[in-house]
Amino acid sequence: MEQALAVGIAQYRMRGNVAENVEVAKALISEACSLGAEIVCLPELFAYYYFPQKREIPRSKLQEFARYFTSIVEELREVCISHEVSLVAGSLVENHENSYYNTSVLIDENGNVVGKYRKTHIPSDECYHEDSCFDAGSHDFRPFMLRGVEVGVLICFDQWFPEPVRAYALNGAKLVFYPTAIGWVSGIAQTEGNWKEAWEVIQRGHAIANSVPIVTVNRIGVEDRITFWGSSFIVDQFGSVIARMGIEEEGVVVRRVDLRLGEKIREGWGFFRGRRPELYSRVTT
Amino acid sequence: MEQALAVGIAQYRMRGNVAENVEVAKALISEACSLGAEIVCLPELFAYYYFPQKREIPRSKLQEFARYFTSIVEELREVCISHEVSLVAGSLVENHENSYYNTSVLIDENGNVVGKYRKTHIPSDECYHEDSCFDAGSHDFRPFMLRGVEVGVLICFDQWFPEPVRAYALNGAKLVFYPTAIGWVSGIAQTEGNWKEAWEVIQRGHAIANSVPIVTVNRIGVEDRITFWGSSFIVDQFGSVIARMGIEEEGVVVRRVDLRLGEKIREGWGFFRGRRPELYSRVTT
Repeated sequence: MEQALAVGIAQYRMRGNVAENVEVAKALISEACSLGAEIVCLPELFAYYYFPQKREIPRSKLQEFARYFTSIVEELREVCISHEVSLVAGSLVENHENSYYNTSVLIDENGNVVGKYRKTHIPSDECYHEDSCFDAGSHDFRPFMLRGVEVGVLICFDQWFPEPVRAYALNGAKLVFYPTAIGWVSGIAQTEGNWKEAWEVIQRGHAIANSVPIVTVNRIGVEDRITFWGSSFIVDQFGSVIARMGIEEEGVVVRRVDLRLGEKIREGWGFFRGRRPELYSRVTT
Repeated sequence: MEQALAVGIAQYRMRGNVAENVEVAKALISEACSLGAEIVCLPELFAYYYFPQKREIPRSKLQEFARYFTSIVEELREVCISHEVSLVAGSLVENHENSYYNTSVLIDENGNVVGKYRKTHIPSDECYHEDSCFDAGSHDFRPFMLRGVEVGVLICFDQWFPEPVRAYALNGAKLVFYPTAIGWVSGIAQTEGNWKEAWEVIQRGHAIANSVPIVTVNRIGVEDRITFWGSSFIVDQFGSVIARMGIEEEGVVVRRVDLRLGEKIREGWGFFRGRRPELYSRVTT
């Protein structure tokens, strides 16, 4: 297994059309590679405005978005080959058997699609009406192999649930990615506390509990009622933030992530060996 | 259900003998009550030095500690009655059918023992050799009723695992307590990162994921190789620290905890209704 991996995160503002967004994504992947990235992660739904902000998305619109799926993946495969880089391709609208999924595609440095992850936890909330357009994927949280490393991929709302990241880690993931689209919603007071802080804290918690580094990549910019808060970050296996982008920063950050720390922590602290799975049945019922 | 509860935390340095420690505990409970506490939490193993620091604890020593169990509980029941306060009695050494447990006793404001929680996750680590003296309890993580509120109780090392607190919350806990004994160990470099920060962050993460306030009560002082770091805290249902004691502070803090916030967050964000338990089987195997 690799001892360390240079991870690139690409954070940007979405433009008006798909082609333009894909061009920006490709340019940022290229920039990350020039900084030494071996694996790059894009934001959730990186080719479009965050359309689930509207409750009613016409089926025709989803069809249109899904038609780009194959050609975008093809373009990204070429980028991976030419830069010899692996990619967690944020997410795209995927049509499969008359359902639409919020799907992340994993591409290795030879341009092979090594797997797909269809978002399993679908938000249903003001300005995040994904339940009105996406079906929920089913997944066994078995990691994908990229650069010889077991990689887990989850998407945005998944990050508020301890179970999917736990399952990936128990299945051997050494690194977990969360392409994301989250921000402040105008007209909603944050009476429950600081959303952005809670969002980072809960993911740092996942990193600690599971001794895995976590890479979360968000977009920036204002789209209708949402001000996306950027702040993409990488945390190490003990929850220390080792990279964090700005709220309005467009660009890439590349950070070398030590993959050996997880084993050391997990062993030293007994975070896996100390588990009592026979007592956890409530979690699955 | 109560809308809010005045929660008292009692943090102190352990003295040389059991009787003295129990006196300090009682005095602090009394102090917390004078500040309006309706429920008070003591630290883990609040009547003794943290003896599991040594690998070999003679069975006779455990027997001796366990003999105090009944009389200490009796004393605390009287305190609860006289102050009309509920108590999460940190933990004590309990002997049951030739096994020794690290056991928290829950006493209501009428002096009734409403339940016991035997620590389920037992650390086995340098200076935390609890596996050499304690058996692991089994528990279904069903909350206890104190002051009309469903209360979850876990102990120290349990706090590094997402499952027990998750199970309590799914079973209806509105508030979770963690009596604790944790500190820095001299002679061990913190090469994995900041232990104390990770300890707080992971528990704030539990609070957010489960929309429950968390109350963690640690000891202070230097005992052989361990410098206990105090820093007992209360976090609300969105992970905001609403009370935090000092590293060397002896005394009590009483904080009114709003119990309604959890429902609002859980509903608003869909943290429970959005779960996919049918996909989580890896967590219990």
